[in-house]
Amino acid sequence: MKPSTESRKLPPLPPGDIRIITLGGVEEIGKNMTAIEINNDILVIDMGLAFPTEETPGVDYIIPDVSYLEQNRSRIRGVIITHGHLDHTGGVPYIMSRIGNPPLYTRNLTALFIKKRLDEFPHLPPVDIRIVEKTDRIKIGNVPVRFFGVTHTIPDSMGVIIETAYGLIVTPGDFKLDLDKVDGVPTPEEETTYSIFDREKVLLLMSDSTNIENPGFSPPEREVHKNLEAIIKNVKGRLFIGTFASQLERMIKIIGFAEKYDRKIVIEGRSMKTNVEVAELAGLLQVKKGTIIPVTEIGNYPEDKLLILATGAQGEEFAALMRIANKTHKQLRFKKGDTVLLSSSIIPGNEITVQKLKDNIARQEAKIIHYRTSEVYIHASGHGNRGEIEWLHKKIKPKFFIPIHGWHHKLRVHAEMAMELGLPEKNIVVPDNGMVIEITDKGRKIGARKETVSSRLVLVDGLGTNDVKEVVIRDRVMLAQDGMFVIIGIVNVKTGRVVKSPDIISRGFVYLKESQDLLHQVRVLAKRKIEEATNRMHPINFDYVKNLLREEVGRYLFQKTHQRPIVLPVLIEV
Amino acid sequence: MKPSTESRKLPPLPPGDIRIITLGGVEEIGKNMTAIEINNDILVIDMGLAFPTEETPGVDYIIPDVSYLEQNRSRIRGVIITHGHLDHTGGVPYIMSRIGNPPLYTRNLTALFIKKRLDEFPHLPPVDIRIVEKTDRIKIGNVPVRFFGVTHTIPDSMGVIIETAYGLIVTPGDFKLDLDKVDGVPTPEEETTYSIFDREKVLLLMSDSTNIENPGFSPPEREVHKNLEAIIKNVKGRLFIGTFASQLERMIKIIGFAEKYDRKIVIEGRSMKTNVEVAELAGLLQVKKGTIIPVTEIGNYPEDKLLILATGAQGEEFAALMRIANKTHKQLRFKKGDTVLLSSSIIPGNEITVQKLKDNIARQEAKIIHYRTSEVYIHASGHGNRGEIEWLHKKIKPKFFIPIHGWHHKLRVHAEMAMELGLPEKNIVVPDNGMVIEITDKGRKIGARKETVSSRLVLVDGLGTNDVKEVVIRDRVMLAQDGMFVIIGIVNVKTGRVVKSPDIISRGFVYLKESQDLLHQVRVLAKRKIEEATNRMHPINFDYVKNLLREEVGRYLFQKTHQRPIVLPVLIEV
Repeated sequence: MKPSTESRKLPPLPPGDIRIITLGGVEEIGKNMTAIEINNDILVIDMGLAFPTEETPGVDYIIPDVSYLEQNRSRIRGVIITHGHLDHTGGVPYIMSRIGNPPLYTRNLTALFIKKRLDEFPHLPPVDIRIVEKTDRIKIGNVPVRFFGVTHTIPDSMGVIIETAYGLIVTPGDFKLDLDKVDGVPTPEEETTYSIFDREKVLLLMSDSTNIENPGFSPPEREVHKNLEAIIKNVKGRLFIGTFASQLERMIKIIGFAEKYDRKIVIEGRSMKTNVEVAELAGLLQVKKGTIIPVTEIGNYPEDKLLILATGAQGEEFAALMRIANKTHKQLRFKKGDTVLLSSSIIPGNEITVQKLKDNIARQEAKIIHYRTSEVYIHASGHGNRGEIEWLHKKIKPKFFIPIHGWHHKLRVHAEMAMELGLPEKNIVVPDNGMVIEITDKGRKIGARKETVSSRLVLVDGLGTNDVKEVVIRDRVMLAQDGMFVIIGIVNVKTGRVVKSPDIISRGFVYLKESQDLLHQVRVLAKRKIEEATNRMHPINFDYVKNLLREEVGRYLFQKTHQRPIVLPVLIEV
Repeated sequence: MKPSTESRKLPPLPPGDIRIITLGGVEEIGKNMTAIEINNDILVIDMGLAFPTEETPGVDYIIPDVSYLEQNRSRIRGVIITHGHLDHTGGVPYIMSRIGNPPLYTRNLTALFIKKRLDEFPHLPPVDIRIVEKTDRIKIGNVPVRFFGVTHTIPDSMGVIIETAYGLIVTPGDFKLDLDKVDGVPTPEEETTYSIFDREKVLLLMSDSTNIENPGFSPPEREVHKNLEAIIKNVKGRLFIGTFASQLERMIKIIGFAEKYDRKIVIEGRSMKTNVEVAELAGLLQVKKGTIIPVTEIGNYPEDKLLILATGAQGEEFAALMRIANKTHKQLRFKKGDTVLLSSSIIPGNEITVQKLKDNIARQEAKIIHYRTSEVYIHASGHGNRGEIEWLHKKIKPKFFIPIHGWHHKLRVHAEMAMELGLPEKNIVVPDNGMVIEITDKGRKIGARKETVSSRLVLVDGLGTNDVKEVVIRDRVMLAQDGMFVIIGIVNVKTGRVVKSPDIISRGFVYLKESQDLLHQVRVLAKRKIEEATNRMHPINFDYVKNLLREEVGRYLFQKTHQRPIVLPVLIEV
């Protein structure tokens, strides 16, 4: 990775000042990562990945650009991971060794998830993972750091408190509030947790903006559990439940309900199997022997006594639910009498694939219960709505505020909410990826520097060892639009004449079998243009001829088809 | 277009039977088209297009497969278009001349829209458009056909009633109910319209399933108008409104409110300009002189007195809103003090582009009001929710039912609703595209034939005169994943030796500048494999060598990169 020129120009941080660099997660959902510098110590919070979109085809993951950390690796004292989801942990295998493998601090379950993931990268140096408890106070470098437990969809989620000379820096990580019902009143446990902020001065809050646009409070997960229990108890026939493997708390509950109502469980999908194993390893789940059965034994039990937990509720092409639905799964098919419960929201961008999944299930006459159309809550987000976010601000009463986690517009809405609660505009910074924010004047001022650090899209593909360059992605997007057109001419270097008719290779452009006339015209055109160009040329400037050919052929193809394939001329000298 | 073998096998329809062929719109949202055969007459209802998805990159439109109609064009007596939206009209330029240009029946505004569109296809034979009124009764072939007005988002929307010996065939087209408020009580006008069905026997209902999964009644458009009026009246600074150009009733209202509150209107976006022109032409809109101003005169008016109506609320790359947002618009920029109202829903698949649009607007500090997060209704769908659909079924009390318009799963849900209302399962057919449904036994039975008619994806691209073949689309999808890799070897036909090192052309695969070693290895491998193969071969079987090369190079590249570019070997014989 090329160090950006911007980051080189960053002056050293004056003693007493605090620098916050938002490396990822503030212009998107995903790849969350923030660096905090205090005196000579750099702390990193979270190291996530994001999933590709239509604009980054053929890519596996997108990770934050850590050029700045690479250049300053000697000052990195530790990495804190708030919880075990990939948008907070997924960058670990790709980033840790680049930044000098500093110690990684996290809670037990998160540590187990990270270790499980790192097993897939045996060539990497081991990561020094140090388990912390939610009430711990530790020192990372010279910086005192504390933690607090937060409610999310995975156990062992935690917030981070960094103690500074001017007050606390607080981030809850991903959080929602634990409510008994949808009334906006948190449980006494939540009140107790957050009561630590009643007594302490908070210098800076950085918090999640994912659901800031949703009014009110998010439906409580315990409401979802209650409804799932009723379904698991009452549904006749086989029950399939599709959910995110990352919804670990819900999976633990579902497995418990299955045991209670005497259903055997089949788990389909690697990530789900892994996550259940990790939950057992962490002691968060005790499954009785014989509860989880292999799919091959499914025929030994009455259908009312079966629950199939499966990945793929987003309609992912190769996940279990889709393979069952499109009849490519080895052992399972949907049929009349089955119920398929999709206990997950639709990630933006997946609407059409989810629709296709539902269509394929419906064709096999299984009944579908989907959270969007269910009359009761069968899914709840792990991120608090506006009501919860507002509650947090009122509890924490920060002096300064940086909205994080979300698209730019969400951060703006979050910042406006903070202003409505009384924070002056000058105390708020809406960050971009790569922005360098500093708290100066002995904690009296906050502001963004004009210099930024490098924040390119870093794309991980295939073996994951190489970055995919943006130019490659641009080509893919262009290839997907109108395909490509290679034209190969063999040119006699002495005479400049084209030997034989040029060859054409094309894909994704037009249907070649029905375009013979077009191809013939292009061959004639190409031969003529090459020979016109080489006619008075001694020696032949092949680059010039190639560029000319690219232009002429491209123009001709557009005129005839209104399409613009990537035209690639090849001249072979004989 | 190749006639499908299936459709050839369809036996002629016995006299007295009725055949319904769902040609499009029943496995997707869009490209609605149904053919109805009664004795020797074929009637076609609607002729829509659908927009491409991720699976059909680089395509402009998708239209229904009309092979069956082409083969039976001599029996087509007429085409009925229910309203002026592209999912009902957009196939007209591509299909009409293929099926022998039968007369096209529709109401005035729809006719004007179709004519406007056909102006862009001057090479086509003229279409014989015959205007009907909503209360007309006409004969198409020997079939008596009546119409009735329905509420949708565009004026002149109509339902169709076909009289048969066994009762009426009814389809409302796209519809919602006109309500005063969200209470499920239609206006007296709606009650009057639908009261025709109190006295008549309905044999078959075919109706819209788009919003069947949404509970209750859809918000009334008049509620939206009231809220838009308040915003237009009260907003300080410039007001931008982004909506679908197809929301013609709403645009007419907005223009009226602008005049009432003395705002000048700028219209940005070709489809919006066209639609306003058509509305004026139809006499549905009288704009005072000077109300609509050119964008160049925007500086002559105070900001509170400006309203900019713009296309692109879906985040379309080249539409007006996006060009203003990403600063490529010639005259307009967003700024602090502007309000941007997005008065449209997000079409599934556009979530991320809409998010990007909002981000770009937010970066320029304009305030965004979006229907999803607005506290009042600023958008309503033109399709009725489940409550309205249920109301329709109860009013029409059909003997048979075919759910149309929507994804398969939606049709199923719609069919289940009909069963809950008391219709026996055997009286309902859930169709697929290309399904042949017949009403037999003197109107006593309904069922789908086992034979179907051709229902391929017909893709329209570029100049729109040629179909894009599915193989081309498959290549585009593959190219977008891992790119392509052309390897060119020059082979001496006599010796079988490779002359010079092979050439490589690659795009969308790896970053070539950083992959010199890989490319070198591939050249060495290719040369060796070619020469090994040609070694004992006289004469050389070049196809065999090429296939071998494709396989060997493909395998090697996968092994080294875990990617599978399309490998295209070229052997040049010298």
